[in-house]
Amino acid sequence: MHRNMDAGVISAENGNGLVVPKNHKKLHLLSVDHLYHLALDTQKDNLEQMFGDVRFVCFGGQPSRMEKFSALVAKELNIDDHEMDGDRPKNYAAATDRYSIHKVGPVLSVSHGIGIPSLSVVFNEIIKLVYYAKCKDVEFFRIGTCGGLGLDPGTVVVTEKAVDGEMNPYYKLAVLGKPVQRLAKVDQSLLEALLRCSEPDDDFQTVKGTTFCADDFYEGQARLDGAFCEYEEEDKMKFLQELRDKGVCNIEMESLGFLAMCHHAGVKGAVACVTLLDRLQQDTLSCNTSMLKSWQERPQKIVLRHIKKKLHITNGKS
Amino acid sequence: MHRNMDAGVISAENGNGLVVPKNHKKLHLLSVDHLYHLALDTQKDNLEQMFGDVRFVCFGGQPSRMEKFSALVAKELNIDDHEMDGDRPKNYAAATDRYSIHKVGPVLSVSHGIGIPSLSVVFNEIIKLVYYAKCKDVEFFRIGTCGGLGLDPGTVVVTEKAVDGEMNPYYKLAVLGKPVQRLAKVDQSLLEALLRCSEPDDDFQTVKGTTFCADDFYEGQARLDGAFCEYEEEDKMKFLQELRDKGVCNIEMESLGFLAMCHHAGVKGAVACVTLLDRLQQDTLSCNTSMLKSWQERPQKIVLRHIKKKLHITNGKS
Repeated sequence: MHRNMDAGVISAENGNGLVVPKNHKKLHLLSVDHLYHLALDTQKDNLEQMFGDVRFVCFGGQPSRMEKFSALVAKELNIDDHEMDGDRPKNYAAATDRYSIHKVGPVLSVSHGIGIPSLSVVFNEIIKLVYYAKCKDVEFFRIGTCGGLGLDPGTVVVTEKAVDGEMNPYYKLAVLGKPVQRLAKVDQSLLEALLRCSEPDDDFQTVKGTTFCADDFYEGQARLDGAFCEYEEEDKMKFLQELRDKGVCNIEMESLGFLAMCHHAGVKGAVACVTLLDRLQQDTLSCNTSMLKSWQERPQKIVLRHIKKKLHITNGKS
Repeated sequence: MHRNMDAGVISAENGNGLVVPKNHKKLHLLSVDHLYHLALDTQKDNLEQMFGDVRFVCFGGQPSRMEKFSALVAKELNIDDHEMDGDRPKNYAAATDRYSIHKVGPVLSVSHGIGIPSLSVVFNEIIKLVYYAKCKDVEFFRIGTCGGLGLDPGTVVVTEKAVDGEMNPYYKLAVLGKPVQRLAKVDQSLLEALLRCSEPDDDFQTVKGTTFCADDFYEGQARLDGAFCEYEEEDKMKFLQELRDKGVCNIEMESLGFLAMCHHAGVKGAVACVTLLDRLQQDTLSCNTSMLKSWQERPQKIVLRHIKKKLHITNGKS
């Protein structure tokens, strides 16, 4: 077991595969740990029994999309014994409406809302969940939607590098009033593994590239159609072209925090998002609902192919 | 009409009371404006007919809480002709699960999720909504929950000043790759008006104070029970006591962005939150569900008293 002093966790890649938060000694002082925003706790819920077999945690913005993803997981992994709530997959966080959690076999599907602060809350609680549940060799994914730069809409971008609104490659937060920077280091092996899940017959491209992670959907992404906009179209185009020239392939709002928190937690993580439009061409979507639905499944498919490969290896299947 | 050059809008306080985004010329170039995250647009929806009488927009984190709030609005304002969806108040944003919108008479109840980025998306779209709807003399409120500092749990704090995790009184964002600061200036008249809505018979205190607006629930708020924590209890207590000494009464995650965006939009805005615990005493809630429910209604009641006063004045009633 390798103790990573700056990583906030005892990383266990070469050990028993458990995720152990560096904060575990303080956590053990709690008589009950309330995963408050998930409406789960260590007293009323047997987290190990409920979630002990989880190996893949897939995050996405919207609860409805993540519920649909869990149905796709069930279909692709051929699992039909997961818990239901009527005709819908059970939401384990149903006692709150902050976030949603669905579980199908070894795959947890979690909604994170919009933006890094919203993500950070559920991320902390999911790390604690997989710790209490004693999950082994767990991998985290963010599967999302984004704007693209110079790519055909519908392209899947796997994040090779994430930067903030000023092109810094780290997640900034304030701890005890002091600024802290956490590098959004990408796990190369997981990045490459996802890229290998692209197939020649796919009707879409899967590429790797830099992801620009904004803290706002409108001004933060150089859109002209927000309530606030104090620049002109030529400023926007110059800026977006500069981003493109620096290798930015897509724009969204969570990748930087996600990758930095995964790295800080010693958990393998990757981000795969589908571009819904080319921001060099437009600010608003022009694809119809059925196209949108089909495109949203593309990064889900890529991640599911990876999950299937991993399970086959573990299970000794081809 | 007063043109506020740095405010992003044409402020209309002395004019016809309309909210006009400074960006309205660019918005008028759009054949359709999609309020994408609200699933509303200027083509399929007659926004003026649907929302033209809105005078108060109340934001809060959770959709369920804002739905309950809209039921309280109906009861308190004695309005029973608002649109329903079965036995629940209609959610005008039902075609998405990003945010929720309920309307009862002149009061819109909107969920904003967790954190400033999540808030900023819906805030932009609501400003455009009240613009297209031609709403007059509109006031914005954030009604939320928070941690308190040295206050009895259940106290309502009206924000007098909002600061970020490093005690800066401005909202920082990156626009076209450059850092921008927007002052979170509080509307004094609205602040005082809310404080006057406290009543001697209330079984809770309503106070004004500085609100510490963090970008994270755990480390950003000096909690010891997150997945990440690289400080000790004495560091936490020293930090929280320093905040208290500087006038910080409560801690949450949206006030700074909310007040800065209201000021920037030329819209009167105020933040009223109930403290669910005293962070000088504990990190996690110990109140039970029925207490929590009753406490959450306290800032709602304060804002509703203000709304009732305003409507009485407008209606010529006492």
